Amino acid sequence: MGMHMAQNLIESGYHLQVYNRTLSKIDELGAASVTVCKTPAEAAAGVHALVSMLSEDEILKETVTGPDGILKTFPKNAVHISMSTIGPDTSEYLAKLHSDAGSSYIASPVFGRPPAAASRKLFICISGDAAAKEIATPILECLGQRIVDFGENVGGANVVKVAGNFMIIASMEMMAEAFTLAEKNGLDRAQVADFFGSTIFNAPIYQNYGKLIANKQYEPVGFKASLGYKDARLAVKLAQLSQTPMPAATLAHDRLLSAVAKGWGDRDWVEGVARGVSEDAGV
Amino acid sequence: MGMHMAQNLIESGYHLQVYNRTLSKIDELGAASVTVCKTPAEAAAGVHALVSMLSEDEILKETVTGPDGILKTFPKNAVHISMSTIGPDTSEYLAKLHSDAGSSYIASPVFGRPPAAASRKLFICISGDAAAKEIATPILECLGQRIVDFGENVGGANVVKVAGNFMIIASMEMMAEAFTLAEKNGLDRAQVADFFGSTIFNAPIYQNYGKLIANKQYEPVGFKASLGYKDARLAVKLAQLSQTPMPAATLAHDRLLSAVAKGWGDRDWVEGVARGVSEDAGV
Repeated sequence: MGMHMAQNLIESGYHLQVYNRTLSKIDELGAASVTVCKTPAEAAAGVHALVSMLSEDEILKETVTGPDGILKTFPKNAVHISMSTIGPDTSEYLAKLHSDAGSSYIASPVFGRPPAAASRKLFICISGDAAAKEIATPILECLGQRIVDFGENVGGANVVKVAGNFMIIASMEMMAEAFTLAEKNGLDRAQVADFFGSTIFNAPIYQNYGKLIANKQYEPVGFKASLGYKDARLAVKLAQLSQTPMPAATLAHDRLLSAVAKGWGDRDWVEGVARGVSEDAGV
Repeated sequence: MGMHMAQNLIESGYHLQVYNRTLSKIDELGAASVTVCKTPAEAAAGVHALVSMLSEDEILKETVTGPDGILKTFPKNAVHISMSTIGPDTSEYLAKLHSDAGSSYIASPVFGRPPAAASRKLFICISGDAAAKEIATPILECLGQRIVDFGENVGGANVVKVAGNFMIIASMEMMAEAFTLAEKNGLDRAQVADFFGSTIFNAPIYQNYGKLIANKQYEPVGFKASLGYKDARLAVKLAQLSQTPMPAATLAHDRLLSAVAKGWGDRDWVEGVARGVSEDAGV
């Protein structure tokens, strides 16, 4: 994701200071408009805005607050544009630290897989301080097809992202159950998936994941089951913090926890869900 | 549903013998092309095809096999087109009875609410004997926008219908949970619903039910919670018969069972699901 996003920013004329935990990946970006940095602090020095895209809350916190972290060098009045899928509590925590340091922070998680990132087709949810959002907007416009503002409460966009990923996992679960029911009753899974994906469920989620689930096509790995499990954990944690019983989220959580327990953490999350449903049904 | 379908058949030039449990409703159809019948047996006499649209398995069975039932008069070689939402086991049972009597039976359940029936926009799933399907097809073409053939196993189309209604209930549950999570975290339910309905979940199910769930708009009643509960029961029963563990279907079943238990059986199924989720969360 980060690689595609960086490429789009370079193409739009930005000069980037880039830090990645796997430094070798940065070489793919080409040299002219990129300064390769060895630490987050080095990447954060002298910029007017910083984009972070990391895999989970704790890694992001460490990247901001660690000994070589962003806050060590981040200029006053600069904006941290935080695009990772994290909980709203993490955004609130980091926004406070930035505020104390004279800089600012907005949440801007995205919907879309790497090909959508490559073609600037991401849907971007934003929330946080209005002035910071104004600075971030031209940058985000280079990355997505649509930016939706969920208000000044900095965690708002994170709530939408967590809710959305829960809905995606729940959709996979329900398709896997429906198609397995069809299979065990003598029907063709692919025909059933095609019927729903072209009629009452004609949305990308059902068409794309529906085809993979129907065909039990679990490769190539697009998004790891371990990351899907992390997203399900975020949903359950948010449900707990806000006292919102979500039995479908608990089910999604247990399905992916089981996938991880079975050793499928590095497989696609579609496999984590759909193979689990199939195995439960003995097929 | 039946009223709209009858109207469309009349407009397509068919003469109908009509039986309805509530006889007064038939008067709305107008007299010229309609013979009003007092029993299913009377309606079944002398026809080449018969369409049934009833609310559940037991009522359909009684209508076919009862003392004034269809089988008392149904001509040999005539086709019973069974459009109700019922289990595949009921279709198998009735197809056998018809076969023994020299007539035939096909399953042809539909997706679409009354307005879709009025405008011939139903999606119709069919299964059963090929020759019978051929006789039924011109009739079904007057009723829907698309007919999809799920094979010669007579219960196949019923499996698809049961799976589909399970997916609709599961989708309502997941939207209600997601929007309640958003609400309890300070977001506007309607904005969140609009975002998902116009991006990754841009299918009619999410746009139409999503708006009702977001706005907690539970009237007018379009489809009763008690009928939704019946559909959830069909899914759980089919899961049991075919040994397919479906935890999301069990959840859908319990949600609507709870709605019925709370006295909401005559309210809309959207209320049955979404108000249940809200009440669980104390809002």
